[in-house]
Amino acid sequence: MTPITYELIKTDKQTGARLGRVHTPHGSFDTPTFMPVGTLATVKTMSPEELEQIDAKIILSNTYHLWLRPGEEIIREAGGLHSFMNWKGAILTDSGGFQVFSLSDMREITEEGVYFRNHLNGDKLFLSPEKAMQIQNALGSDIMMAFDECPPYPATYEYMKQSVERTSRWAERCLKAHERPEEQGLFGIVQGGEFEDLRKMSAQDLVSLDFPGYAVGGLSVGEPKEVMNRVLEFTTPLLPADKPRYLMGVGSPDSLIDGAIRGIDMFDCVLPTRIARNGTCMTSTGRLVVRNAKYAKDFRPIDEHCDCHVCKNYTRAYIRHLIKCNETFGFRLTTYHNLYFLVKLMKQVRAAISEDRLGDFREEFFERYGFNKPNAKNF
Amino acid sequence: MTPITYELIKTDKQTGARLGRVHTPHGSFDTPTFMPVGTLATVKTMSPEELEQIDAKIILSNTYHLWLRPGEEIIREAGGLHSFMNWKGAILTDSGGFQVFSLSDMREITEEGVYFRNHLNGDKLFLSPEKAMQIQNALGSDIMMAFDECPPYPATYEYMKQSVERTSRWAERCLKAHERPEEQGLFGIVQGGEFEDLRKMSAQDLVSLDFPGYAVGGLSVGEPKEVMNRVLEFTTPLLPADKPRYLMGVGSPDSLIDGAIRGIDMFDCVLPTRIARNGTCMTSTGRLVVRNAKYAKDFRPIDEHCDCHVCKNYTRAYIRHLIKCNETFGFRLTTYHNLYFLVKLMKQVRAAISEDRLGDFREEFFERYGFNKPNAKNF
Ligand SMILES: [Zn+2]
Ligand SMILES: [Zn+2]
Repeated sequence: MTPITYELIKTDKQTGARLGRVHTPHGSFDTPTFMPVGTLATVKTMSPEELEQIDAKIILSNTYHLWLRPGEEIIREAGGLHSFMNWKGAILTDSGGFQVFSLSDMREITEEGVYFRNHLNGDKLFLSPEKAMQIQNALGSDIMMAFDECPPYPATYEYMKQSVERTSRWAERCLKAHERPEEQGLFGIVQGGEFEDLRKMSAQDLVSLDFPGYAVGGLSVGEPKEVMNRVLEFTTPLLPADKPRYLMGVGSPDSLIDGAIRGIDMFDCVLPTRIARNGTCMTSTGRLVVRNAKYAKDFRPIDEHCDCHVCKNYTRAYIRHLIKCNETFGFRLTTYHNLYFLVKLMKQVRAAISEDRLGDFREEFFERYGFNKPNAKNF
Repeated sequence: MTPITYELIKTDKQTGARLGRVHTPHGSFDTPTFMPVGTLATVKTMSPEELEQIDAKIILSNTYHLWLRPGEEIIREAGGLHSFMNWKGAILTDSGGFQVFSLSDMREITEEGVYFRNHLNGDKLFLSPEKAMQIQNALGSDIMMAFDECPPYPATYEYMKQSVERTSRWAERCLKAHERPEEQGLFGIVQGGEFEDLRKMSAQDLVSLDFPGYAVGGLSVGEPKEVMNRVLEFTTPLLPADKPRYLMGVGSPDSLIDGAIRGIDMFDCVLPTRIARNGTCMTSTGRLVVRNAKYAKDFRPIDEHCDCHVCKNYTRAYIRHLIKCNETFGFRLTTYHNLYFLVKLMKQVRAAISEDRLGDFREEFFERYGFNKPNAKNF
């Protein structure tokens, strides 16, 4: 019996988007959902209480980073990641694969695993399916991710094919190495880049292994938005309807909506928290760079239509001042607002699905946010 | 009618320390009290809600820093500093004098005021009694401080005498320039270094001007603790018993207690927040440098005898991990605990005064904290 189950509640008549619910050992969450990223066992600048306040039910944390600091043994001794960081909700951990392939410039991929250098001090390290499972078992996350290869974009068909085959073999090894299947659910990751037949091959391999959930990997790695949408269109139908589907590394409002429309249930991305620390906010009327000089005497909230704690109590002028002075409270305020904004957006998406009007919602939202303008930024 | 009034409730029979209450336009606070420092309209890493949670009733903010960023005009337009930073309690602002004398290495002191260079960009600036009042009137703090000269330690008797005389003339100009005496109370600052007759002269000059409160300035500038205690012993008796007395720049637990014993009612210092950001905590059993390696697997709270939110929910191991990774949430947690610790210490001091046992409390606290050890650090 897997600890992770998915309930499909209904499908939007306009778009096919799914309204559902995922159950985990640390609570349930409605989908589509956005998961804030807490790389180092903290969602930067935020407290767990604040994450609860904004109604986040599940967060993501990074296996690679926690492996290096503080080390999975300390977290295991603390009673697992939930206990270590004082977070009562659900946690998904990635496999470390993405960081190995993106942070390390010196790496050697073998059938056994990947040799690479620690991005902090250059020490030689080795990560494999078995090691990624051992670390995630120590972390005790509710949802673990299989260790996959993340090929660069673009990659040749030949390279991608070999990579997909290896990822399938690694997925099988992950299942075997997973020591706590009653407490932690392991998701498989479908790869294959933009090649439809490779995505099909990858999906078939993984579905045959019967994971309790599936991620679509290898997207949001620099490809155009149209490519991502097209890949999703031919990939999500390959996945079982009774399992949750997770699109990795996506957090811009337009892509969240467009991903939901293509059958995705879960998303994560550092985008809202990262841009917050640069003084950029997501608002109901589009991007607002609160650090800009024009907000120096603007005593309105970040978003006049937002009912978050920050927008109810703090002004653009104050937040701009804090950020200009590099005061961490400023980054807290923008981070809080941005995460609230995305959590609320997903609530709006779910409401629209339940009323069969996600297509209409998309149009209104895109128009108001400015995504329909030529050269619009996608966040 | 001054907006700041002081009620003397009782005097400790063991030490002479005063239990009292100060009333301000933004609430009352019991004394002796410690004021957290919010230099740039934020107590670094903390929210105003958290300051309320730890029971801080009054904070300090820095005129010099706010004058440069964001500028007092923006704060005036925001409706004053309380409104700008969303702080409902009382605020004391210093005069800018201390920063002018400590941050700027190029300055020229004239009878009119001080010419100096901005520590951020080197621009030439001028601060005078009138300018310091105009800025603080714009900030709208409950308690303003007179613009004084802060001579270096040690200074010669001759220099100090001239400086004290100038500070008295400046104090008179401050009183005249203060435009909101019904809403903001202006405190005078007694100077005079370690010279008893100069302290007497300064106190007489200022008391004759009838301020609603008095600070003892020019201490905690590098002199030995014995010198500070001796100066307080001959200075506080020179001040009227029906006005609050404020010792500037003092925040180490031993000096808070020893200052209260010498008749001080109010204290401020960056110490608890600054050391917190370096991973150092004040605990009931002494200093604890939580970033040290020995706490890597220590799952106890920072202080096992502390009932603050941090100690109830977070471990040394987790906080150490955050601080080692430079995660701001770690600095938030240590800052919260340290401020809670000092606010609670002052509650204990007040309880001891009300029960005529502050002398005993001092002995027990010093022994437990480790202040009685040879070569004890004073924080
Ligand atoms: Zn908001
Ligand atoms: Zn504590």
